[in-house]
This record gives sequence, structure tokens and C-alpha cells, in this order.
Amino acid sequence: MRIDAVVHSPGCLAQDLRLESLELDPPGPGEVCIRVAYAGVNRPDILQRQGTYPPPDDASPRLGLEVSGEVIALGSGVPADALGQRVCALTPGGGYASAVNTHWGHCMPIPHGLSMAEAAALPEALLTLWCHGVQRGRLSPSDRCLIMGGASGLGHWLLQLLVAWGNPVRDATAQAEEKRAFCRSLGATAVLPHSGPWERGRYDFIWDIAGGAGLEDRLMALAPEGRLVLVGLMDGAQSTLPLPRLLSHRLTVLGATLRGLPSMHKAEACKALVAEVWPLLTERRLVAHLHTTLSLHAAGDAHGLLERGEQLGKVLLCAAAAPE
Amino acid sequence: MRIDAVVHSPGCLAQDLRLESLELDPPGPGEVCIRVAYAGVNRPDILQRQGTYPPPDDASPRLGLEVSGEVIALGSGVPADALGQRVCALTPGGGYASAVNTHWGHCMPIPHGLSMAEAAALPEALLTLWCHGVQRGRLSPSDRCLIMGGASGLGHWLLQLLVAWGNPVRDATAQAEEKRAFCRSLGATAVLPHSGPWERGRYDFIWDIAGGAGLEDRLMALAPEGRLVLVGLMDGAQSTLPLPRLLSHRLTVLGATLRGLPSMHKAEACKALVAEVWPLLTERRLVAHLHTTLSLHAAGDAHGLLERGEQLGKVLLCAAAAPE
Repeated sequence: MRIDAVVHSPGCLAQDLRLESLELDPPGPGEVCIRVAYAGVNRPDILQRQGTYPPPDDASPRLGLEVSGEVIALGSGVPADALGQRVCALTPGGGYASAVNTHWGHCMPIPHGLSMAEAAALPEALLTLWCHGVQRGRLSPSDRCLIMGGASGLGHWLLQLLVAWGNPVRDATAQAEEKRAFCRSLGATAVLPHSGPWERGRYDFIWDIAGGAGLEDRLMALAPEGRLVLVGLMDGAQSTLPLPRLLSHRLTVLGATLRGLPSMHKAEACKALVAEVWPLLTERRLVAHLHTTLSLHAAGDAHGLLERGEQLGKVLLCAAAAPE
Repeated sequence: MRIDAVVHSPGCLAQDLRLESLELDPPGPGEVCIRVAYAGVNRPDILQRQGTYPPPDDASPRLGLEVSGEVIALGSGVPADALGQRVCALTPGGGYASAVNTHWGHCMPIPHGLSMAEAAALPEALLTLWCHGVQRGRLSPSDRCLIMGGASGLGHWLLQLLVAWGNPVRDATAQAEEKRAFCRSLGATAVLPHSGPWERGRYDFIWDIAGGAGLEDRLMALAPEGRLVLVGLMDGAQSTLPLPRLLSHRLTVLGATLRGLPSMHKAEACKALVAEVWPLLTERRLVAHLHTTLSLHAAGDAHGLLERGEQLGKVLLCAAAAPE
């Protein structure tokens, strides 16, 4: 099938992204082809374009890790009633396109009451939170939490989840006043600067997009049995570790990226997410915050927005205008 | 009740340990009094005597974290049939004595076919492995494992558990030829020097008693989803962390000490241990290796043995000769 897809060469600039017409293979065993309505733009896409985050060997070399749309073709082994379903999905790359193939197990129904645009904002962020925060990091409603980057693409979802769960402490960091206000409006119990200082032993759980030298201080802010989930290195890749505190307080440090997770693991997480979080979306206790929607032609502008950190909520690409 | 108990002042030398007659309070709510047959000697005891590992506020200031013996008195809330039972147990300190009080929930039956001496070697090591390795570290029979210190008090149990489970890789480190031979006899797939080098990505699980600067290299030896459980700092408290690898391989670093775990958590782990590991002990697939047994009077000699690292297996104190 001919599709329009955003192509790039690793290491190129945002403005070098371009839309090309190319051939998409039919979906393989267990896969479906989705006619894309919207594609989510994520930070890993920026790193992949810049050449510092190459895709796994078995993945598409093209950009785009999540979409919403309609299932228009089935590979072998996929139940026939999948055809025509409206879904949001993780993709193995290639989501910045008019159509994309992905595992049927990585597709989730559009939550009742949400638009196709809102649904495109869900898969990457919520699966990352679920797999790494809830499952590996054992996040629970009683945890006192610190979210580094409470207004970020991941952080603002986590903040809403903590409010929905009723967690007693849900502190968030933000710098710009607009982002600080956004965190407060979502229900942060305190909005703090990224650099701290942190009260020792205040938190059971820290969601950390920063890494860097400050990581050691943040580990000291964990209470016994505390967990720190490291999802980014905005402050750098160098850190020492307070080993005696790690032992005495039985701390856990978890490194997290969603993309490399085994396919089966992602499929199980999709099921759990639909069971546990979709109801909260339908009740509007968790809300997708959309910053802007651009056409596939403007993928470079979307990357520019994220690189400058200007967005407050999700940046989407709309594929609806592209020919099938 | 008058008991004989080993007393010390924090910071004293091994030879300063002395046996004194003192008064033991009756067991409190949920507690039992155990007439001690044998008390296990553990590395944390050495650190506590030296003054570098103070006991928790709610614990006994005296030495001794595990015993075997007979229940001779019950606090309120303990079922009447507990009286007279032969048990091995974690204690909140004070196990180096002719009798000690502990939570009934921290008592486990003597595994069928094991002696009272063998049973005294079980609680600390096996509960540490269970709580931190199996539960928090998600150790499973398919994991490829590296055990730092395969002949150590914890390591030799873990090695046997991996053999019983059939884990495909169970490499161990040891230096002295006697300890290397011990590791091989227990079923290590390879016996390596503490300093490595390590093959990148070889292991799913590392049991680490060393810490120190080598920790970073060992983290690089973990495969995706790998876990490193840090249970000691024999090589020092300073280490940097390979943060990009932590993210890209979704690694987990867990700090572990048994003593501070919440009491309820220990009680649940005791139940799991009796269900999952007691049968392996009865089948002699896991065997207690006893190095030597000394009297309570010779507690200082026992500490000396551990400080010099001369033991190969468990060092016990026998309380049977002491007056009740």
C-alpha cells in the first residue's frame, strides 16, 4: 500500500524532516495496519532523529511511537472483528504516517467519550507510567511522591493519576511560572524548583526525568523502601550513588525506557491499562491536555516545539488530510 | 526470668564480649520467649559490636539476630499450642543468650530432618535471600546469575537455591582456593575473581556484597531487565552509576538489609519461606554448612573468626550448657 510517511536521516535537523510517498508492507502475523488519524510526538522521537537513540534492530527506522486511528487490514492470527475498530496503539516506529503496522496486542480501544486526538496522547505516556511506575516501581495510592517535571509529557499524567488515587503527597517540580501554575491546577501538593532542596526521607516514590549530579540528593530524600524511577537524563549522565543509604533504607533505583520492553510485556500492560486506567479517563478524572496539532508536513515544527520545551501538554500530528 | 546473655559496649573489641546474668522481661503481646539452643553469628553482629551499625530504636541493644530453641513462655495473643514448639526464629537482637523474646510471627518450625544446630543457620540468610532476592529482586529460575562471594554466609545458600531451581548460569566469585573449591562443590557454573572482568550483558541477576568502584562494571554486566541486589559494601561505599545503561537496559539496583524491614513484612516472608524453601531443606537439596560451634562464653572468638574471614559455612553459639 502506498502511504505518506515522515522520513529522516539520523542526525538531521528538525527542519530536514520531510513527507514522502512510500510502500508499506502488508501487516505481518499478529499485526494490524492502522489508518492513522493522529500521531503523538514524543521526546524519544527527537533523540532518534538526532541520532543518539537508534531504534531497536527489529523496529521500523522511521519516527512515531504512538497513533490513534482505524484498523484497515489484518495480518494472520488477528481476530476478524478487529477490522474497522477505532484504536490507539503503540507502534514499532513509523507512526508519523498516513498508515502504520503494529502488533494487535499493542492496540487499545478509544476510551469512551474521548476524541481520536485525545486518544493519540495516551499510549506512550500511560504505558511508561504503568510498566515502570506501577508495575516495576510498585507505585501505590499510599506513596508520598515527588514528580520531577510535573508539567512534562509524562509528569502531568502521573500527577493526575496520583490525584485520582488520592496519594497524600504529590509534590512536583517546575521552573517557568506557566508550568508551575499548570502543576498547581492539576493538584500538586507543592511545586518546587528542579534543584531542590529536598527534605530527607520525605518521599516513598520519585519519578525522575533529570538524572545528573542531583540524583544523589534525591535518593537521600527517599524514605525506607523508597523507589526512584529514572526515565530521563535532562541534567546529565553522571552521578554518584549513596550506597550506605541505599542499603540502610532498602532503596530501589530503576532505569526505565518503554521502547525496548519485550512485546509480550507491552501487550500485558495494555490490557492492565485498559482495565485500570481507561475508566478514570472516561470519568474525566484523567484528562489529555493537548498543546497543539500540526499536519504531518509540519513534523519539523513539532520537533522544534519540543526541543525548545515550549509545549504545555501533548503535541500531535494530524494525518487525516494525507491521502490513503 | 534470669538469663545469661552476651553483653557489649558499642565500639568494643571481640575479646571484650562477656557473658552476664541479667533479667529478661516476660514476652510482650504477640511475642514468645525461646529457650535458646543455638544462636547464629552474622556479619551485622560484628558491625553492631564495632558501633557502626546501631540497632533500630525498638530493638534489643544486645547481639544476636537468629536462634533455634524451644518456646517456653507466651505473651498475650499467641496461640496456646505455641508452647513447647521447637522453632528457629529471627530475633530483635539478644539472641546470644540462654533465652530471648521474639515475635511469634518470626518463628518457623524446625524443617523435618534438620538438627537444632542446622536450623539456627537458616533464618537470617534465607529470609534475606527471600525478601530481597526473590521478592524485591524478582529472582526466578530462568535468571542467569552472578553471586559475589559464593562461599559467604549468604552466597552459599543462594548458590544452592539456584542449583535446586535449575538456573542456567550460576557464576560465583571467590578468592582463596578453599572457597573456590567450595563454590564448585556446591554447583557453581564458573568461579571467578572478585574483580572480574565481567562479560557485558551476561547476567539477569547479581547478588552483590561488594559495592565500591567495581559496582559500575558489574552493572554493565547486566542484560536488559537485569537486577543487582546490593547487600554489602566490602569494597567501599563510593560508586558512580552508568545512568544511560540503567535507562537503556531498564536495570534495577536494590539496596538490601534485613533488620529494618517492617515486622509484618518479615512475618509474611517467614510463611513464604516455610512453604517454598522448607521442602528443599527436608529433601537435602539445600544443606546447612556448619563451620564450628562455640559456647556463649566464646562469642568473642566467634567474632574473631568472622572478622578474619576464616569460616567456611556457619558459625554458631551453643547456649545449651547455660543455666535457664
